[in-house]
Amino acid sequence: MIELALFGAGRIGQVHALNLAALPDVRVKYIIDPFANAACEALAAKIGARLVDADTAFADPALTGVVVASSTDSHADLLLRAVAERKAIFCEKPISLDFTTAETVAKRVEASDVPVMLGFQRRYDPNFRAVRERIAGGSSGRLEQLVMHTRDPGPPPVSYVKVSGGMLRDQAIHDFDQARYMSGEEIVSVYAVGNCQIDSAIGAAGDIDSLLVTMLTASGTMIQMSNNRRGPLGYDQRLEAHCAREVLFIDNRPQTDIRIASSAGELRAQPMDYFISRFEAAYRSEMVDFIAMIRDGAKPLATIRDGLEAQRLAEAALVSIASGAPVRLSADWKP
Amino acid sequence: MIELALFGAGRIGQVHALNLAALPDVRVKYIIDPFANAACEALAAKIGARLVDADTAFADPALTGVVVASSTDSHADLLLRAVAERKAIFCEKPISLDFTTAETVAKRVEASDVPVMLGFQRRYDPNFRAVRERIAGGSSGRLEQLVMHTRDPGPPPVSYVKVSGGMLRDQAIHDFDQARYMSGEEIVSVYAVGNCQIDSAIGAAGDIDSLLVTMLTASGTMIQMSNNRRGPLGYDQRLEAHCAREVLFIDNRPQTDIRIASSAGELRAQPMDYFISRFEAAYRSEMVDFIAMIRDGAKPLATIRDGLEAQRLAEAALVSIASGAPVRLSADWKP
Amino acid sequence: MIELALFGAGRIGQVHALNLAALPDVRVKYIIDPFANAACEALAAKIGARLVDADTAFADPALTGVVVASSTDSHADLLLRAVAERKAIFCEKPISLDFTTAETVAKRVEASDVPVMLGFQRRYDPNFRAVRERIAGGSSGRLEQLVMHTRDPGPPPVSYVKVSGGMLRDQAIHDFDQARYMSGEEIVSVYAVGNCQIDSAIGAAGDIDSLLVTMLTASGTMIQMSNNRRGPLGYDQRLEAHCAREVLFIDNRPQTDIRIASSAGELRAQPMDYFISRFEAAYRSEMVDFIAMIRDGAKPLATIRDGLEAQRLAEAALVSIASGAPVRLSADWKP
Amino acid sequence: MIELALFGAGRIGQVHALNLAALPDVRVKYIIDPFANAACEALAAKIGARLVDADTAFADPALTGVVVASSTDSHADLLLRAVAERKAIFCEKPISLDFTTAETVAKRVEASDVPVMLGFQRRYDPNFRAVRERIAGGSSGRLEQLVMHTRDPGPPPVSYVKVSGGMLRDQAIHDFDQARYMSGEEIVSVYAVGNCQIDSAIGAAGDIDSLLVTMLTASGTMIQMSNNRRGPLGYDQRLEAHCAREVLFIDNRPQTDIRIASSAGELRAQPMDYFISRFEAAYRSEMVDFIAMIRDGAKPLATIRDGLEAQRLAEAALVSIASGAPVRLSADWKP
Repeated sequence: MIELALFGAGRIGQVHALNLAALPDVRVKYIIDPFANAACEALAAKIGARLVDADTAFADPALTGVVVASSTDSHADLLLRAVAERKAIFCEKPISLDFTTAETVAKRVEASDVPVMLGFQRRYDPNFRAVRERIAGGSSGRLEQLVMHTRDPGPPPVSYVKVSGGMLRDQAIHDFDQARYMSGEEIVSVYAVGNCQIDSAIGAAGDIDSLLVTMLTASGTMIQMSNNRRGPLGYDQRLEAHCAREVLFIDNRPQTDIRIASSAGELRAQPMDYFISRFEAAYRSEMVDFIAMIRDGAKPLATIRDGLEAQRLAEAALVSIASGAPVRLSADWKP
Repeated sequence: MIELALFGAGRIGQVHALNLAALPDVRVKYIIDPFANAACEALAAKIGARLVDADTAFADPALTGVVVASSTDSHADLLLRAVAERKAIFCEKPISLDFTTAETVAKRVEASDVPVMLGFQRRYDPNFRAVRERIAGGSSGRLEQLVMHTRDPGPPPVSYVKVSGGMLRDQAIHDFDQARYMSGEEIVSVYAVGNCQIDSAIGAAGDIDSLLVTMLTASGTMIQMSNNRRGPLGYDQRLEAHCAREVLFIDNRPQTDIRIASSAGELRAQPMDYFISRFEAAYRSEMVDFIAMIRDGAKPLATIRDGLEAQRLAEAALVSIASGAPVRLSADWKP
Repeated sequence: MIELALFGAGRIGQVHALNLAALPDVRVKYIIDPFANAACEALAAKIGARLVDADTAFADPALTGVVVASSTDSHADLLLRAVAERKAIFCEKPISLDFTTAETVAKRVEASDVPVMLGFQRRYDPNFRAVRERIAGGSSGRLEQLVMHTRDPGPPPVSYVKVSGGMLRDQAIHDFDQARYMSGEEIVSVYAVGNCQIDSAIGAAGDIDSLLVTMLTASGTMIQMSNNRRGPLGYDQRLEAHCAREVLFIDNRPQTDIRIASSAGELRAQPMDYFISRFEAAYRSEMVDFIAMIRDGAKPLATIRDGLEAQRLAEAALVSIASGAPVRLSADWKP
Repeated sequence: MIELALFGAGRIGQVHALNLAALPDVRVKYIIDPFANAACEALAAKIGARLVDADTAFADPALTGVVVASSTDSHADLLLRAVAERKAIFCEKPISLDFTTAETVAKRVEASDVPVMLGFQRRYDPNFRAVRERIAGGSSGRLEQLVMHTRDPGPPPVSYVKVSGGMLRDQAIHDFDQARYMSGEEIVSVYAVGNCQIDSAIGAAGDIDSLLVTMLTASGTMIQMSNNRRGPLGYDQRLEAHCAREVLFIDNRPQTDIRIASSAGELRAQPMDYFISRFEAAYRSEMVDFIAMIRDGAKPLATIRDGLEAQRLAEAALVSIASGAPVRLSADWKP
C-alpha cells in the first residue's frame, strides 16, 4: 500500500485525490489544508483521509509520498522539506515565482535521489503524449514548425493575476513546456509581444492578456505561440506539429457529438469548457505515472528541471516584451 | 444512506457498481453472483460490498433496491421477487427472451407501486438525451424521418448468439427503443430484412448478422435502421433526426482529438471502441437517475413498459423477416 | 470537329451547351427550343449556335449527335428519331413517363448500333464515381449495406409535380440508379413507404413528399434510401457504402471553407444549394464522356438500359407504396 | 465591348484570359508574349485573340485596358506605359523587385487617374473576402489576433527562387497583404525569423524555405504568420481571425467529399493541390471586379498602394531576419 499526503484540497487537489483513490493499493492518508472547508472535509470523508497538519504527516514513517497542490508560495518550502524527509513528490507548477528560488530548489532536488514529478498535465494528456511519441519515434520526420494556441474561456479576476505571477507564468508556461517537450530540444531564442486588448483591469494590474511568442531551437525548429485570456470560442487549446513527412494536429474536443444542421448552417458544440474537463484523462494519467514512479522507479514525463526550464522561457519572454528585442538563451541565462 | 444489492458482477455489473460507489450516500452492500470469480471479489473489496446469496440480500430490511445485471434468464424471476419484496429495481434489458413472460412480468410490475427502471443506457447518454429533449421541446419542428445506424466492431461468438436471443433481441432492441423514445410515439408498422453476410457461423446458428428495418409511427414519421455485427470502422452508433426545421446528427466520437495530415490525406482516429467506452457517461447518468428515482420518486427515462414495447418491435421484425411482409402493430400485438 | 444539336435550352440545356462549348473541336451548331426566349437567344449568341427547328438540324449531314434536354414528353420521339437518323445521343432521364413506351424505346435503341448515353449525372460526379471505382476495384471488400439520402432544399410547385411523374420518377430515380451502379447488381426486391408530411398540396395532387425504400440485390446486399422534398439543411445528398473492409462516405460539400466559432458553438456553411451547383463537376464530366463516346466509342457510364432499369425500380416502389407489400422483381417485371 | 490586351500567356495569363472570355461584352483582343509557344497560340485561337507586339496593342485606340501577367521584370515598364497611354490596368504582383522602383511607379500611378488593380487574388477569394467583410461589418468584434499559414506543396526550383525575389517577396507577400486587408490597419512592427530546413539548395541560393513572422498594428492587433516551401499535407493555406466575439477560420478545402473509414481511422482527401485550383473562384472574381472597375469605376479591392505596402512589409521582414531584431515601421520606411 502506497500512503500519501495531499497538501491543498482546492479544485485541483480534489481532482488528484479522487484519481489516486481510484487506484489499487494507493491511499491518500492525510490532507493538509490551512483553509480546510466543507468541501475539504467531504473529500476526506469520501476517500477515508485524515485532516492533519504538515508535521503530523511528515512524522508518519509509513508515508511514501506527497502531492503538493497548495498555493504557489508554499511549493518551494514543501519541495525542500519533502526532499529532506525523503518522500516522493508530485508538485504542481511553478516551483516558485522567484526564479532564483526555483533554481535553488531544482538544484537541491536534483542533488538528491528523491523522485520528483512536476504537474505539467498536458504532457500526460493522451493526445499530446501520442503526438510527442509519434514525433520522437521518427515516423513523422523532423519537427520543422510548431504552432500552439492557448486561450482561456474568460479573463481571471485581477486578484488572481496579482498572485499567479501573471499570464506568462501561470498560463503560457504550459506552452513553453510543450515547446521543449514536443521538440525534444532546448530553446535558443525567444521573442514575445504582449499587450492588453481584452480587460483593461488586467493591464492596470501590470499584466498582459494577449501574447505572441516566437522561439527557435538549436537545430532551427521554429515555434510559435498565440495566447490570450478570453477566447470567444471558449477554452482554446490546440497544437500543430508540422514535421517533414506529416502534420499532426491536436484539436479542441467538442462537448457533445451532436451536429445541428439548418438553413443557418451546421453547428457543432463548443469545446470542453476548461482545463479540469478538457484534461480529465491527463489528470488521471498523471497520478498513474506518479504511482509508477514511486513503485517502479519509472522516470517522470515532467521533471523538476522541466519546470525550471519552462519558467526560464517565461522569464525570457517577459524580458523580451519589456525590451522589445529577442532574448538569446543559454543554459545559465537568468532574468 | 441508500443500500443496494447487485445481482451479477460481470462486465456491466462492474460498471454499475463503480458508478454507484462514486455517488454520495449510496452503498452497494451486497453482490450476488453464482459464478463469483477473482474480479468479482476484487470489486467487492474495492467498494466494501459482501458476496452473499440472494436470500441474504432480500432478508435485509435496510436494503432499498436492487441492480439486476445477471444473465438474461434470471431477469424475470428477480424482477418478480424484488417487486414482491418491495425493493426499487434497476434491471438490464431484456425482461425475458420469452415475450409472454415479459408481458406478464411487465403487468405485475405496473400493477405494483415499486419503482422500476430499465437499462436502456442510450436514453441516458448525454447526446441522445439532448437530441430527444430538443425534439420534445419543439424547437426542431416535427420529426419527419429518423435514420439510425448500429454496427458492432466484430461478430460475437456463436455461443453468445445462442443465449442472447439473437441480433434483434440483444443489439437492435436499443434502436427499437430509440424509435419510440425519439419519436415519442408508438410504432404502427414494421418491415425488416435480415440475412447473413458477415459470419456464416451465425447463420448456421439460426441468426442473422445484417439487418434493415423500416417503421412508421401513427402520425406518419418514418424510421429507418441499418445494423450489422461488424462495422469495419469499429463501433458504429449514429443517429440522424430529420425534423421540419433542422436535422440533428449524433456522430461517433473519435478516440483521440488528433488529425494526421500527409500526402495520403487527413486521418482521424477510429471511434470509441465499444459500448462500455462509448456510453461511459450514459452509464454514470443511469445510476444517478436510478438513485433519484429511489430518493425523490423521479420518473425513470426507461420504464418496464419501454422494455416490453421495444421487445414487441424486435418480435415483429423477426416475424417480418420470416414472412417477407410488413407487420401492422396494435397495442396487443404478439408474435 | 464534332457538330451537335441541342434540344431544349432551359436550365440544364444551358449547362450542357456551355460545357460543350469549352471542349476543343466541339461545336453546338443548332439549338432547337419551341419556347425560345431571351436566355435561349443569348446562349446561341454566346456559343455561336443557330436557333432552328428539328427538321433543319436532322437534315444536316454534318451533324454528329444530339443532346436532348427538352421536356420529358419529347424524349421518346427524339430518341427514336435520332436513332433513325443515326445521330449519337445524350438524353436526359427519363426515357418516357410511360414505362411501356420507355421499354419499347430502350429495345429499339439497343437493337441499333447508335451510341446513346443517359443523363444520370450522379454517375459522373467525381465523388460518386471514385467510390464506385473503389468498390469495383475490390479494395473495399464486398458491399454489404448501402445507405443513401436525397432531400431537396424545398418542395417543387404542384405544377411541376403534375408533369414530372412525381417524386419517385423525377427525384428518387437517381437513387434507384445509384443502387444498381454502386452494387453492380440487379435488385430483386423493393419495399417502399411514402406519405405526405411536408406540403399537403403535393398530397392533394396525388404525389408524396417523403419516402423510405428498402432493397435487396441478388447477392444479399442491403440498400436503404431516405428521401424527401424539403431538407431543412438544404440540398442533402449523401451516401454511405458499408463494405467488408471499409466504409465509404460521400458528404455534402459546404458552400464555403469558413468556420465561425463562438459561445454558440462552431458553425459551418450550408451545403451547395442545389443540383446545378452541387453537380457542376459532374455535368462537365458528363459532356467530356459524351464526346469520348462519339469520338472513341467509349462505353457510357449510363446507358439507355440503366435508364429503363432505374425506372423499373421507381415503378416497383410505387406499386409497393400502393399495396403495402414488398415487390419481388424479375428481368421482365412491369407495373 | 471592352477590348483588352494580355501581356504574358503563361499559366496565370491563361487563367485570366479564359475567365475574361467567359464574361459578356468583354474581349481579349491581343496577346503579347515574347516567348509565344503552342499553348499561347492555342489560347489565342480559342478566345479569338491576335498575337501581336506591345506597340500594336497600345496603338489601338479601341483598347480599353491591359492585363499584365508577364515576367516580373517587365511589370514596372508596362505599368508606366499603360498609365501613359491611359489604359486601365490589371497587374500581377509585384510592381518591381526593386523597392525604390516600386515606390516610384506607385506614385506615378496614384498621380494619374488611370484605374489600376493589383493581383492579390486572395482578397478576391470568396472565403477570405467574406471573412474580411464580416470583420469590417463589426459583427465579429475587434480583431485581436490573426494567425495565418502558407505552405507550398513542394519547394520551387532554385532557378525560380533566383528570379522571384525569394520566399518573402513571391510567397509570403500574400500573407503580408492579408495582414493589412484583414486588420484594415497599417503595420507598425515586424519581427521575422527565417532559415533553411527543407531544401539546402535554396539556402545555397541565398534564400530561406521556412519563416515565422510577428506583426503588430497601430491599435495593438497581433498578427502571426508561419510559412514554408513544403507542407507535407500539400498546399496549406489557412487563416484564423480571433475577434472579440467570435473566431473565423478559413480551412483548406479537401479535393473530394469522400471519407474512408476503416480500422485505420477515418481518412479525408488532401486539400486542393495548389493555387490555381484552390483559388479558381478567386481568379474568376478578380476578372469580374477588373471589368467592374473599368465599366463602373468600382474601386478595386487591391490597389497599387496595397502592392507597395505588402512589399514594404516583405522588405522589413528581410531586414529583421538579417538583423535579428524587430523593425519599427513608419509610412516612409525603406529597406
